[in-house]
Amino acid sequence: MNASTKPGFDPREFRSALGAFATGVTVVTTRSESGEPVGLTANSFNSVSLDPPLVLWSLARNARSLPVFTGASHWAVHILAADQDALSNRFASRGEDKFAGLELDAGTGNLPLLRGCAARFQCRTAFQYEGGDHIIFVGEVVEFDRSELQPLVFHGGRYAFATQKLPQTAAPREPALSGSFSEDFLGYLLGRAHFQFYRRLRGSITAAGISDDQHFVLATLTVTNGLSAQQLGANIGFFLEGDLRVALDGLAARGFLTPVAIDGGEPRNCLTPAGRDCALRLIAAAKAFESQVVDRFGYADSAALRTLLRRLVTLTDPGLPDMWGSPPSVD
Amino acid sequence: MNASTKPGFDPREFRSALGAFATGVTVVTTRSESGEPVGLTANSFNSVSLDPPLVLWSLARNARSLPVFTGASHWAVHILAADQDALSNRFASRGEDKFAGLELDAGTGNLPLLRGCAARFQCRTAFQYEGGDHIIFVGEVVEFDRSELQPLVFHGGRYAFATQKLPQTAAPREPALSGSFSEDFLGYLLGRAHFQFYRRLRGSITAAGISDDQHFVLATLTVTNGLSAQQLGANIGFFLEGDLRVALDGLAARGFLTPVAIDGGEPRNCLTPAGRDCALRLIAAAKAFESQVVDRFGYADSAALRTLLRRLVTLTDPGLPDMWGSPPSVD
Repeated sequence: MNASTKPGFDPREFRSALGAFATGVTVVTTRSESGEPVGLTANSFNSVSLDPPLVLWSLARNARSLPVFTGASHWAVHILAADQDALSNRFASRGEDKFAGLELDAGTGNLPLLRGCAARFQCRTAFQYEGGDHIIFVGEVVEFDRSELQPLVFHGGRYAFATQKLPQTAAPREPALSGSFSEDFLGYLLGRAHFQFYRRLRGSITAAGISDDQHFVLATLTVTNGLSAQQLGANIGFFLEGDLRVALDGLAARGFLTPVAIDGGEPRNCLTPAGRDCALRLIAAAKAFESQVVDRFGYADSAALRTLLRRLVTLTDPGLPDMWGSPPSVD
Repeated sequence: MNASTKPGFDPREFRSALGAFATGVTVVTTRSESGEPVGLTANSFNSVSLDPPLVLWSLARNARSLPVFTGASHWAVHILAADQDALSNRFASRGEDKFAGLELDAGTGNLPLLRGCAARFQCRTAFQYEGGDHIIFVGEVVEFDRSELQPLVFHGGRYAFATQKLPQTAAPREPALSGSFSEDFLGYLLGRAHFQFYRRLRGSITAAGISDDQHFVLATLTVTNGLSAQQLGANIGFFLEGDLRVALDGLAARGFLTPVAIDGGEPRNCLTPAGRDCALRLIAAAKAFESQVVDRFGYADSAALRTLLRRLVTLTDPGLPDMWGSPPSVD
């Protein structure tokens, strides 16, 4: 770490350094004296004591809801789940009707309780302490519940997932021959994960009577119909085991695609209805397998894996065409 | 979420519900009156106020170091980086000499400062508040510094990485044909990431004058030398484009492996010195590329990706042999 920053410091720098501490995200709710539900997003929550059960969070002195909370006998803290970033944004904004359309449970003293969270704590105000430009609220937990949902994380001003570290006992094993790959080599893990995933689709592909290469071509044409052989080669050439021409001719012979000549240029390969049907059946099977994996993996870890793979793909992109970019118009 | 748990609740359940809130991990240090460095791991840290700059954490009343901290005018909070779980464990234990062998910086009033952290805050004790079985320490930050290191995260009693969510603007794009793959299909991402990674190794493989299949065989034999054709087929058959027999014969003809008959069983394929040299050169090139990727990706995201891929491989394992398990002895 470099030399430290001197006091009289830049508030932006200070805020950014505080952002180095990862937190969960909570929404704290209560009711105003007139019975209106009030709530806001806070990441200043933390546990304090087990016996008595105490938790704390802090609220800016200039927050519009401060008088409601300083006057409230009870409030509820909701620890948000990984998929609740929209809820976090909603309660972090200054909107008038943050509760509009939300289904609520009723807590102690009719506290408004949100649903779908990782955990909820209903608290009786125990202490209110001075904390500079904030008030620190310490509450005694009178009731709580929790789910098994993965949490939303906040770090460096952005939302994140908590990706659990492997336990020490799962340290990657080293090969007998020094200098060889360990179990943790990224290329091996990518290859094995990919082939095991693809292997599960093999049955459907074989049943459709097409080759792996033909499957890649069909799937690509469902994303962007009407690609020329040259465009297909640029998109998926490096995926293919054999010759693209052979795959295209086979698909045309099966009646799965028609070459369409446009403007006297290279013919474009357009899916026939039969080709489209075959492709969509295979895609449905692939998506069904993906759903199984996601179910067992959980939302947060699946999304984290996708995020990391997308970043890896961008990082190692040799300059492939943008498959989901603007397609040539052939329909 | 299910019905809530009633008060008079199980402390273990309460602790577990609190664990639903993800936090960073900090080590708080100070010096005793006699000048000894004192420190402990805490995840009860949080920010309180920007002006004045205040942070807080809490310490159990029965902690051995409580008198030192209640008497200290200053203390320092270190936000641990993703690779500092060993440091976290060290300062969470009751060991006598937690600072042994650590290189320290000297902070305000000779505060002992640890290195390699994501951020450090040096604080003057501002308030000590009652918090049930804990004391809440509120400190005014007099100095701080930070690095760009990713944080260690604690959630559900385990360490984790913070894997940043993609911004909303990077939402996966949908294909023109409804029912087809979006940019986010896991099978596509795995395939593309794998092929882009492998593509970078192609140059070295081609230069060595061997095929992709032969490369897989060589790499596998460096992990476990002396596998029979049947064992190789079980390990990597699903990786291969062509026939394993052809790959083995080619490698034998190149002088890269020798079949060794043992106990009258199937011959085992053993690397020759030339085969071992060729394999290790290719592996070195692959590891060099992996290092480039890891450097650009960062430690935490690389480790998170490996972790998720290992879990995915386990989840989708069709029952492949354990490549890094006990190898047959042929040396």
